[in-house]
Amino acid sequence: MIRKYRIGNPIPTESVVTEIEITEGNIPFFTTDVEKKSLFLKLSESDKIWGLGETTRGMNKRGWIYISNNADDPVHTEDKRSLYASQNFFIVDGDDRRFGIYVDTPERVTFDMGYTRSSELVISFDDFDSDLYLVEGDSLKEIVRQFRKIIGKSYVPPRWAFGFGQCRWSYMSADEVREVADKYDEAGIPLDMIYLDIDYMERYKDFSVDDKSFPDFPEFVQEMKNRGIHLVPIIDAGVKIEEGYDVYEEGLSGDYFCKKENGENLVAAVWPGKVHFPDFLDEKAREWFGNKYKFLLDQGIDGFWNDMNEPAIFYTEDHLQEVFEQIEDYKGKNLDINSFFDFKGLVGSISNNSEDYKRFYHNYKGQKIRHDKVHNLYGYNMTRAAGEAFERLCPDKRVLMFSRSSFIGMHRYGGVWCGDNMSWWSHLLLNIQQMPALNMCGFLYSGADIGGFGADTTEDLLLRWTAFGIFTPLFRNHSAMGTRRQEVYRFEKTDSFRRLIELRYSLLPYLYSEFMKAVRDDEMLFKPLSFEYDDARSLEVEDQLLLGESLMLAPVYKQNATGRYVYLPEDMKMIRFRAYDDYDEEILQAGDHYVKAGLSEVLVFVKKGHVLPLAKPSKRTSGVNTAAGLSYICYEADPSGYELYTDDGVSRIME
Amino acid sequence: MIRKYRIGNPIPTESVVTEIEITEGNIPFFTTDVEKKSLFLKLSESDKIWGLGETTRGMNKRGWIYISNNADDPVHTEDKRSLYASQNFFIVDGDDRRFGIYVDTPERVTFDMGYTRSSELVISFDDFDSDLYLVEGDSLKEIVRQFRKIIGKSYVPPRWAFGFGQCRWSYMSADEVREVADKYDEAGIPLDMIYLDIDYMERYKDFSVDDKSFPDFPEFVQEMKNRGIHLVPIIDAGVKIEEGYDVYEEGLSGDYFCKKENGENLVAAVWPGKVHFPDFLDEKAREWFGNKYKFLLDQGIDGFWNDMNEPAIFYTEDHLQEVFEQIEDYKGKNLDINSFFDFKGLVGSISNNSEDYKRFYHNYKGQKIRHDKVHNLYGYNMTRAAGEAFERLCPDKRVLMFSRSSFIGMHRYGGVWCGDNMSWWSHLLLNIQQMPALNMCGFLYSGADIGGFGADTTEDLLLRWTAFGIFTPLFRNHSAMGTRRQEVYRFEKTDSFRRLIELRYSLLPYLYSEFMKAVRDDEMLFKPLSFEYDDARSLEVEDQLLLGESLMLAPVYKQNATGRYVYLPEDMKMIRFRAYDDYDEEILQAGDHYVKAGLSEVLVFVKKGHVLPLAKPSKRTSGVNTAAGLSYICYEADPSGYELYTDDGVSRIME
Repeated sequence: MIRKYRIGNPIPTESVVTEIEITEGNIPFFTTDVEKKSLFLKLSESDKIWGLGETTRGMNKRGWIYISNNADDPVHTEDKRSLYASQNFFIVDGDDRRFGIYVDTPERVTFDMGYTRSSELVISFDDFDSDLYLVEGDSLKEIVRQFRKIIGKSYVPPRWAFGFGQCRWSYMSADEVREVADKYDEAGIPLDMIYLDIDYMERYKDFSVDDKSFPDFPEFVQEMKNRGIHLVPIIDAGVKIEEGYDVYEEGLSGDYFCKKENGENLVAAVWPGKVHFPDFLDEKAREWFGNKYKFLLDQGIDGFWNDMNEPAIFYTEDHLQEVFEQIEDYKGKNLDINSFFDFKGLVGSISNNSEDYKRFYHNYKGQKIRHDKVHNLYGYNMTRAAGEAFERLCPDKRVLMFSRSSFIGMHRYGGVWCGDNMSWWSHLLLNIQQMPALNMCGFLYSGADIGGFGADTTEDLLLRWTAFGIFTPLFRNHSAMGTRRQEVYRFEKTDSFRRLIELRYSLLPYLYSEFMKAVRDDEMLFKPLSFEYDDARSLEVEDQLLLGESLMLAPVYKQNATGRYVYLPEDMKMIRFRAYDDYDEEILQAGDHYVKAGLSEVLVFVKKGHVLPLAKPSKRTSGVNTAAGLSYICYEADPSGYELYTDDGVSRIME
Repeated sequence: MIRKYRIGNPIPTESVVTEIEITEGNIPFFTTDVEKKSLFLKLSESDKIWGLGETTRGMNKRGWIYISNNADDPVHTEDKRSLYASQNFFIVDGDDRRFGIYVDTPERVTFDMGYTRSSELVISFDDFDSDLYLVEGDSLKEIVRQFRKIIGKSYVPPRWAFGFGQCRWSYMSADEVREVADKYDEAGIPLDMIYLDIDYMERYKDFSVDDKSFPDFPEFVQEMKNRGIHLVPIIDAGVKIEEGYDVYEEGLSGDYFCKKENGENLVAAVWPGKVHFPDFLDEKAREWFGNKYKFLLDQGIDGFWNDMNEPAIFYTEDHLQEVFEQIEDYKGKNLDINSFFDFKGLVGSISNNSEDYKRFYHNYKGQKIRHDKVHNLYGYNMTRAAGEAFERLCPDKRVLMFSRSSFIGMHRYGGVWCGDNMSWWSHLLLNIQQMPALNMCGFLYSGADIGGFGADTTEDLLLRWTAFGIFTPLFRNHSAMGTRRQEVYRFEKTDSFRRLIELRYSLLPYLYSEFMKAVRDDEMLFKPLSFEYDDARSLEVEDQLLLGESLMLAPVYKQNATGRYVYLPEDMKMIRFRAYDDYDEEILQAGDHYVKAGLSEVLVFVKKGHVLPLAKPSKRTSGVNTAAGLSYICYEADPSGYELYTDDGVSRIME
């Protein structure tokens, strides 16, 4: 049962697609404090909190404080309160009550999950204008299903997007991309995608290709497609200010850019230097920008990723001006320590300054709205621009799309990756812990940068991360310019990497079936154990996951470990894969086990009465027959009991 | 057996106090590449690497790359290669060989512990001038013992320094300090020390006290001492440039400051604003600076901590000048994205710039040596200045002393704290993992800032961290200005905190005995399991510790956990403490267990044939009788079998 409540006069987000009548009166469970613009909920010792999407810390969100305020912050340490996403749905799960709550507002919302006082959950608002959906149900899964139903079906990518993809910020030329493809093919490692980061563009201009470093782009796209490899370019939010540049000129003449109070277009700077930001909240601008993807679709491109769409701001022209004027005061002065820190703070204020979000406006549903009031909707609507355009431009075909910034509602138009993470073991664990929370909020096509984006990876971290990544729908190795190169063929244990990635391709029938059924049935693909088992121990397991109907995963995420503890809520069959066709099987009884897992091994646990279908892998997803010729690993089950989902992998799914 | 080898012409560090003849010829196990200034060692799959002191990541150092280059870097994430210390001793522990190696040079040394290639350890030098001590022995413990013997006995603090201490950067007045003491006393929580961060000084001037906010300081010290509380002030490395300030004037007239190439004193800036750095490597300057501690000793102070002694540099006058000149070029310019990043990099280069370490010189043993060549010795020699002075000034009495920056050798003069950590769960684990490595290098009096220094703590993190901190010799709650207040009485579970800290006081007979015996016998206080058990599983346990002869610890270091896995290499008696006089006992068999450990509970495992003595706690260490009236928890052992160490707790220990 879902009830909708309204506080104040919220700006619509269009994240919920089902009309629900507003219930008047008090919001059950909560007490409201209008003065503090806050809702309070008493927590009992046993209450757990699940959800909140892409946030820091563990699966149980209790004990920390989170702020929905989409941020371009690449250092996802435990103390961070905001990452790239605002996904305001969570479930309070106690002995005596169990309900989901969706806080549907674009404004900044603070979720104090028992941080200030361990016995109290406080939801605080900047403005106190919000819709609230209260979702009650018999089980955690049922609550999620009901919520997912009102926010609309999750985005479905083409099947080839379930292959393995390689990316790096700094593939500087077509030849470098060719070399990556060659090296993968030489090493016999499956690959379906090479992602193009900002380097393919002409001076970082959206919908342009640098014709010196990537000459004859359509031919290059075709050449790679002939090899079975999809090129997936990045699109950034900011449009370079440059006379004669068509996107810029069209944006000007169509009046599609975000404006300052005085009516001038805001000038900010990101990778291209000075840019204007398209007003993605304006339907007309959204349509215009969406249509621009055609520039690349026409060249054979069939997938994209949207970046820098919080939006990230290196600086605004106006604030930079202010800073330089103030720096003048410091010059030549005998800086004391306070003025020195003021100076450092001043320079530190240049990038991603929240005050800059108050400098520009949107034309949203006929109203002029200051950006900070709808900040969390920006990336969502950029991706919506693309998604709506693809429906028009490619009505018969799925297009790959995922985004860095997000908000619930965007899950209908694309997936997400977990942003600019680091080559840290703790971020492998974070990846594991974020998956179910993303799924709860509708984001099924998701994953993190395997091996870590920032900082230097190590071979063992990359092996362990790949061994988890083979299970995430978005399976991409990505790293930043200046860090250690991390294409898997550069390491000594190439055989191990090949076997891991082959196993992914072998798992395709299962992964694709479970993904498509999760979309169809509004289910989660990844679940904490507590979503299916209600024993006390299952409630606390933070480093194992249920994947689809048959599997439990227990990834190794610690340096130098050769095994790990695993908790089994019931008897399971443990598979220790060395390769898709080389594995041990062992029935393990319910309870605790310490199991060995060598650096090149993957543990998979098959639930009783369940089936894991396996295909023969291939170097491309197109070569994997997911419909026939499968082998099956069964635990007291019959292969015929497994509902295999198959389709042509590219046609749009009709709802 | 210890053999000494010499490469090139190393600058002496005086870390080794035993004369050992140099062995000519090749260094066993290693191959030398003079051109690459590197030593290479083949690693087998099973090799583990223990040691390296205060560094990031786990107990087994394999798989990452570390650089000995003392750094003021408060963000100890996994990717960091240098923290505040250079402690170049480690053990290679394989199936077929086992040896320790001490790389005795002040220069920058890089330890590639199987990072670049997992099968190779590479030690690379900036200059290739180093002594190398190769230590072979029958066991890990024996190797450590031999090494410790040649570097001299570890520092011994007064017994009261084993009490609990409270600190915060921002105790702005004597009244605020009084309030902290009052609140602890009102809550009935034991406390022996309140630490004074930089705020007690007059404008951050070493050996000064602000007489407005801390009036009548000697009386205040006495007042607190009468309550049984020791005030422990901080001393920073830089001496404020201020005419008429005695320390500055003496430094000038005595020629005790570090000089630039042109003979002028280097001007850097830290907390006091512009400072000169005492040349702690110059024996005369060291003696002079050491004697300055008398200013505070004479006011009743009997403990200090030395900080900012890497040395941290906010800026040097010369470099800041250069930066401002270059900023001029950016002003008014239409910054493109490259020049914007250049500008940000330029401003980022102001603080802790390694180039600044090339701007000044030391007078070391009659030679003029550029700072960067002996950088890692600076903090060591600051603390040595104090330690040598205390021997002169207080020949009969121990003085508390610990330092942020360190180098092996400094362990004879003081302890260390693990620097400016964060309120992260991962830093509680780091604290656990750093303890044995510090002990290997001679640093026995050590610990981390309980609850985390930077970022906001949570009650559960502080509880769990305190539950581990009760076992570390240095047991201090410390936090940074601007973060959440974290004195334990500010939280809801005051009773739990009191019981935990009382348990510390109850453990004093054991902790003090084990500490003193470890000093006497050159043993480690904290050991990885592998140092006493040689089964394969013990080799991999990264989150349990042996403490002294009787105990194994298994701290809980995960948010929202109510228990944890523990591996027992042999049968042990598990004690689940709720309070010193309220606990369960249970014999657990060797093997794996999942054990419950509530938020207010502490697990301790008593080894077979061993004894844990417990005293009746008191509000001050002085009230704890560690010699008589003890109770004992025994596991197949007799209390009389335990060697209790007692002394007056303040007299210097004669060697």
